Amino acid sequence: MTRQELFKRILEKGSFLCVGLDPDLAKMPAALQGDLLAFNKAIIDATAPHAVAFKPNLAFYEVQGAKGYHAFEETVRYIRENYPDIFIIADAKRGDIGNTSRAYAHSFFETLGVDALTVAPYMGRDSVEPFMQYAGKWTVVLALTSNPGSADFQQITDTEGTPLFERVLTSVSQWGTADNTMFVVGATRGQMFEQVRRIAPNHFLLVPGVGAQGGSLDEVVKYGMNDLCGLLVNSSRGIIHASSHDDFAIQAEVKAGQLHAQMKEILDARFASKS
Amino acid sequence: MTRQELFKRILEKGSFLCVGLDPDLAKMPAALQGDLLAFNKAIIDATAPHAVAFKPNLAFYEVQGAKGYHAFEETVRYIRENYPDIFIIADAKRGDIGNTSRAYAHSFFETLGVDALTVAPYMGRDSVEPFMQYAGKWTVVLALTSNPGSADFQQITDTEGTPLFERVLTSVSQWGTADNTMFVVGATRGQMFEQVRRIAPNHFLLVPGVGAQGGSLDEVVKYGMNDLCGLLVNSSRGIIHASSHDDFAIQAEVKAGQLHAQMKEILDARFASKS
Repeated sequence: MTRQELFKRILEKGSFLCVGLDPDLAKMPAALQGDLLAFNKAIIDATAPHAVAFKPNLAFYEVQGAKGYHAFEETVRYIRENYPDIFIIADAKRGDIGNTSRAYAHSFFETLGVDALTVAPYMGRDSVEPFMQYAGKWTVVLALTSNPGSADFQQITDTEGTPLFERVLTSVSQWGTADNTMFVVGATRGQMFEQVRRIAPNHFLLVPGVGAQGGSLDEVVKYGMNDLCGLLVNSSRGIIHASSHDDFAIQAEVKAGQLHAQMKEILDARFASKS
Repeated sequence: MTRQELFKRILEKGSFLCVGLDPDLAKMPAALQGDLLAFNKAIIDATAPHAVAFKPNLAFYEVQGAKGYHAFEETVRYIRENYPDIFIIADAKRGDIGNTSRAYAHSFFETLGVDALTVAPYMGRDSVEPFMQYAGKWTVVLALTSNPGSADFQQITDTEGTPLFERVLTSVSQWGTADNTMFVVGATRGQMFEQVRRIAPNHFLLVPGVGAQGGSLDEVVKYGMNDLCGLLVNSSRGIIHASSHDDFAIQAEVKAGQLHAQMKEILDARFASKS
């Protein structure tokens, strides 16, 4: 999918919501007996009208070993078959030496066929570039994350006063383009979106941290939105575990619908002439 | 396993060799028809007498999806059942926000039961600490990797002239101890082991890059060995793909045996009174 196509889908749907499919066994209704795929199908059906993307995080599947990995594959297949217009991001935060990253790229982009994969930048260029070789696929590189630990290394400044996450933005922007690369920038760092946009004005940003982690949608939009929207805002727990009872899908639909309504208003105001 | 126990096994075996179980489908004999588990069993049986640890890298299993993940699980089980004295490192380079890292820690240390897991530090403290909560298990944090891209971010110096990888060593040493934490330090950076040892004199180091990537065992030992050995030197391709024909296990045994002989000589010279 190209950047223009993604923007078009965002306008058509009136949403730049990404629903994080991170099912926590402890928060799933007991009746499901830990069936990740059944849980996901209910969440997907309930929230697909409100979302432009789904983002399953591998950790929550690997908890069940090969069985969980299979549930992850089946989740991707279910979305593809029933909601072909949805953008799928595998949240795996991979990154390894060149030949190993090539194996991961093959796994996710060919074996699984997702649209995008999150990648950790610590190991540098040859750990990131293999993901960028796939036409129509997206490499989503961690820049400034939403968790407290993002202060530990990402914000260390170099001899010129530039924080590490800006070095990551600058370097990775040179390895890839705004048409095959996105960056993860946490919503809990609202004002830092200005700094990010100075370096990467055109890239799509994947923004976690709205909802359970306390980030503000308005701040993200104010500082982060660009002419092609340029934002995919993710909410995971705040939607999929809005209820831990049998009404979990209904409550997920309510929460996703609320975000959808806010986003539609924002998009209408900004891009009225295009939609 | 404690640090003292690991040291004891190293002395008993006369080896600090870790064999990387990274089967590349393109380099496996055609007769195996891509059967990762069959390949691994042959490699494990051939090299276990020479190795103190095995390190499967998840990327090479995920290439086959859930089937590959199952082969990974069965590989771990095969080692456990047949070579209970072997230390098992899952090379997965995981790391995510707290609740997600907790899910990964559960997957690897409880569901799978490996001894150690590699972790990427970019997301900071709350992404690393969940792995350190498991008694007897090890968190192996990337510090200075063996690939060319390690220069891109790991060696950026801060305002005090300290490179990022040293900041990682210092911070992570405070979050964990030398009894539950190791660091990845690439063999291709021989002299930098001196810098590493100034900050982390007691930690075990997992050292990739000897063999296919060109690192020197002598340099690693000269600058990196400590009083409890403190080194696990990994070789993957150089051993398991020494031959791509039907004699792959025989050739793997030869290569592992050569490293074993070198290591035994080094250990005998240094720890003669203890073994």
